[in-house]
Formats: sequence, structure tokens, C-alpha cells
Amino acid sequence: MRIVESVGDGVSNLKPGDHVLPLFTGECGECPHCKSEDSNMCEVLRINPTREGMISDGKSRFSTIKGKEPISHFLGTSTFSQYTVVHSGSVVKINPTLPLDKACLLSCGISTGIGSILNVAKPKKGASIAIFGLGTVGLAAAEGAKIAGASRIIGIDKNPNKLEYAMKFGLTDFVNPEEHERPVHEVLKEMTNGGVDRCIECTGNINALMSAMEALHDGWGVAVLVGVPSGDAVFKTNPFNFLNEKTITGTTFGNYKPKTGLPTLVDMFMNNKLELGKFITHRVPLSEINKAFDYMIKGQGLRTIIDMND
Amino acid sequence: MRIVESVGDGVSNLKPGDHVLPLFTGECGECPHCKSEDSNMCEVLRINPTREGMISDGKSRFSTIKGKEPISHFLGTSTFSQYTVVHSGSVVKINPTLPLDKACLLSCGISTGIGSILNVAKPKKGASIAIFGLGTVGLAAAEGAKIAGASRIIGIDKNPNKLEYAMKFGLTDFVNPEEHERPVHEVLKEMTNGGVDRCIECTGNINALMSAMEALHDGWGVAVLVGVPSGDAVFKTNPFNFLNEKTITGTTFGNYKPKTGLPTLVDMFMNNKLELGKFITHRVPLSEINKAFDYMIKGQGLRTIIDMND
Repeated sequence: MRIVESVGDGVSNLKPGDHVLPLFTGECGECPHCKSEDSNMCEVLRINPTREGMISDGKSRFSTIKGKEPISHFLGTSTFSQYTVVHSGSVVKINPTLPLDKACLLSCGISTGIGSILNVAKPKKGASIAIFGLGTVGLAAAEGAKIAGASRIIGIDKNPNKLEYAMKFGLTDFVNPEEHERPVHEVLKEMTNGGVDRCIECTGNINALMSAMEALHDGWGVAVLVGVPSGDAVFKTNPFNFLNEKTITGTTFGNYKPKTGLPTLVDMFMNNKLELGKFITHRVPLSEINKAFDYMIKGQGLRTIIDMND
Repeated sequence: MRIVESVGDGVSNLKPGDHVLPLFTGECGECPHCKSEDSNMCEVLRINPTREGMISDGKSRFSTIKGKEPISHFLGTSTFSQYTVVHSGSVVKINPTLPLDKACLLSCGISTGIGSILNVAKPKKGASIAIFGLGTVGLAAAEGAKIAGASRIIGIDKNPNKLEYAMKFGLTDFVNPEEHERPVHEVLKEMTNGGVDRCIECTGNINALMSAMEALHDGWGVAVLVGVPSGDAVFKTNPFNFLNEKTITGTTFGNYKPKTGLPTLVDMFMNNKLELGKFITHRVPLSEINKAFDYMIKGQGLRTIIDMND
């Protein structure tokens, strides 16, 4: 969550003082993806961890004070800083009355989790939904499942401490695969009378994704990959899973078009249909940013807010 | 295509003289699949090549004349015979004015191919569609693609003779993978400016299915498995295909609910929106049924009609 300080030549849709959310995957508005109603993967500004400079000239706008050595941009936002420079397609203007220290959560994980349900899995009312991995993204998927009217929301996590979050976030069931001798997909199929209607994979573990596919109900089951697997991971499955009318797909940013789609989530937040505060477990000043990484690496809590003003 | 000779106790929706199509995958009307609008995979009467008898008692209604040795039922229809006995959920009543020697094509391949497009792939008007395998099912998928308003219909087949069918059935392009040094998915991506909108796999070759996945456009591409792979086949893919918002699914019988869905195809045939005659390349009397298998095994022609009266 930022406030525009100045805009470059040719930027007409933003002005100094506007409140904006920075976007790790942008929206140029002109490419085939932005023009398609089915894609949010802007050809120009989509997530790209290796892009180091601005689109226009490939150069960085940051440098060290001494020596003026360039500092690379990161993920189109470079937001671990009080000031940043971004493409105008990499921010979305939002209502200035939104609380700055909560709305920032909509820039990534929360939107991804909710969108994986509402935009991608699209369960029917009363559906059963299994969520692999109860981090922020998985718990946001659970919020989406509740909004979609799921009758059963099953959280799966190897960390027994996640039971507490499962209860706090209103999941109906919690399964720890390590407490079962059978493969988790067999446990899930038994729990759901033949298979789960929708599986959401939020761990990035390829074996979890393969379990998700197995756990689906035939005839209509849909699995959605949200977690990011390692670069050398290979998904394998028996092709009869497809002939049995199971579907597998995936999503980046919950298929929200970042600039045009996020306002729907902002509305949900403003109308109290989406509670953001419960995802915030820690707050640190910028000077203690490494604490935030430690919390994340150790799996302590959910989201840590970094206060740029301290 | 058959005419009902008699009905058993409790069958109220059919009577002697009704014209019916036998269904290799039936519709009981009562199970969770039949009650779901998303599935056509009836729990009771779905395709089952190992079911040898009737559902009610598991016994066969056929036997040898001498010795009365039981002869097994096959695929719920057992239609290589002038008379057969089937579950009432394994036939659909049709308009008696339909020509018997053409409507029979709707009981399997033609419906499967068309449904794979209209019910499963659901391309937008103007979409590009690649069809792997130009047998009857693939060519029926091409008919579906035309009905759906595809702008590009690309047939892929290793048999160069299929070019003739590609032209006859109005495909816009024909690709023989053996004429290219590059993998076929690279050829397809180049032809379609970044990837095909929909890929339909009608060969049952697992490598073709994996190529289909690669050939898809990111952001919205959908691959549909229609062909039946060998029992030990394993589908493998890079999971980033899912994160790049590609989808893979599959279908049995083109997702048509057999009893309630086939009438829509019959209507298309009656209204001249669907031409069946061009799929019929041979006709043989029942006494020469083995000729029909030879034509199929050798890949000669498309469908052979077996005349039960000769």
C-alpha cells in the first residue's frame, strides 16, 4: 500500500496523492492477455523474478549512494523501501479510506487464495473442498470456500499446530497426513463419499498436487495448483483420471486481473465480507525486516506487516 | 439402432415397437452422477468392459444353443446380434423417422467427438483448435469445432492419407508430425502465435497428450483427452503449465448424458446441422462382420455399418 509521489511522462491514470496497491503481476491493458477475459497473465508485466529494470529501457531507477552502483528492481514492485519506482501498470488505485496497514494484504496471498476458489475452482454451493497447506494462501482459500457456500472445507497440513488455524478460520475438518498410514487421498475419498469436489494445492509440493488429483471425485472433480513447485518437479498421473472426467488447472494471483479485478476484493473488505486483520500475526518496523523473514521461514504465524515509517 | 421387441417387469418408459439407440455407457437416472448436471458417468451403468451380465442379478441372458453355456454381455449393449437384452437405462428412445442405418453412429464416436468440443473444450467463437488423430472421433471433433465457430481447425496425424479427410471435412490445416524435425507442439505454437486455444487428443497415445498440453496457449488453453491410452501409460508434465493457467481434462462420450443428452444431437442431424453419411465409408452384412474389423485395424475408411438383416 503506497501513496503516489510523482508520475512520469505519459501516465494519465494516476496523480500524486493517489493511494495505490503495488502489483507483483501487472496489467498493461493492451496485450492479448489483458484483452482476453480469460487471462490475467499480462504479456508485458506478468510476474517475472528475473526482470531487473523498468520495461521502457531495461534500466534500474535505484542505485547505491556511494559509487552509484545500480540496484535491481524486483517483481515489478521493489517494495522493501520507503520509496520505489514502478510501471503505472504495476499499481492499482484504491479508495483512500482503506486502512493502509491491512489493504496491503490484497496485493498477493489473500487475493490468490480467494481467487483460486471464486475465479478458478468455482465450486457449486454445498461442495466439498480440500485445501492442501494451511498458510495464508490456503486459509484465504478457505475464506473463499466459505463465501462460495462450501458444505465441507477440509484442511490438510503436516504441521499439527495448523489445527488451531483450521479451527480459527472455520474449516470443518483437519487432516494431518502423518497421522494416517494410508495415503491422504484415500482418507479424503472416504471422508467425502467417493472424492472431493474441489482440491486446492497451496504447498508447492508436487506430491501433494498428485494426491489432490487422486482425491477428486470422478465426473466433476477439479484440482487447482496455487503453490509454486520446485523448478525440476514433474507432475505425473494416470491418464484415466482425465477420462474419468477429472480436471486439473492452476492459477497465478487467483486469476484476478490485477488492476480491474482487485476492486472487487476491496469492496468485499469494505463491506465486511472479508476480514483481513486475522491474517496479520506480527508487525515489525522496516529496521527489523529480517525478523519478518524469520517468522516466515520458521512457519510462525501468517502475515507480518512491515511498517515503512519506523 | 434397434427396435424394442419386449420389455421386462417394471420398465415403464419403453414399449414394444419403440426405436432406440443402445448406449455403451448408460443412465440410471437415480445415482449421484445422473443427478449431477456435471457428470454423465452413471455409477450403475457407466462403461465397464468387464461386466458380463445384467445389473439385476449379474447373470447373462445369452447362451449357446447346444449345452446352454452362458455367453457374456458386452459393454451393456451386446449389439453384434439381431436380438439383444439390455438394461432399460442402456437405450435411448429416438424419433422413429430417423434412418436406422445412420443414426446408429450417434451411439458412440460421433457424439464423443462433437461433445468433446461443445460440452468440454467449450471454445470461444474464433478460437484455434488442434485435433490429434483424424479418425472418426477426431473428424467429429472437427464438426464440433465448425459448429462452435472456430477460426482455425488443425488436424494432426502421422498418416499422410489423412490429408484427404482433413480437406473433405473442412479443416483449415493439416500437420504430419513426421514431416517436421521439431516437436509438433513447437510447430503448433508457431502456427498459432503462441499456442492453441484448445487441443483435443483423439489417438490414445500418451505422447500426443503430452504434446497437446505443451501446444496450448498460456492464460486460457484447455486440453481434452478423448482417446483411450494403454493401461500402463503415465501422463507427465511440468507443473508450471498449470501455474501458467493451462487446463487439462478429459471426457467419456463427450460428456453427453446418454439418455437426456443424445436428443440434442438427433435434432442437429434432423435439422441438417450434422451430416452423418460422410462418416460411413463401408457397409457389410452381419455374415461378413470380420471385414469391418479388418477395415478398422488397417485404418481403411471411417465407420463401417453392419447390416443385421443380411
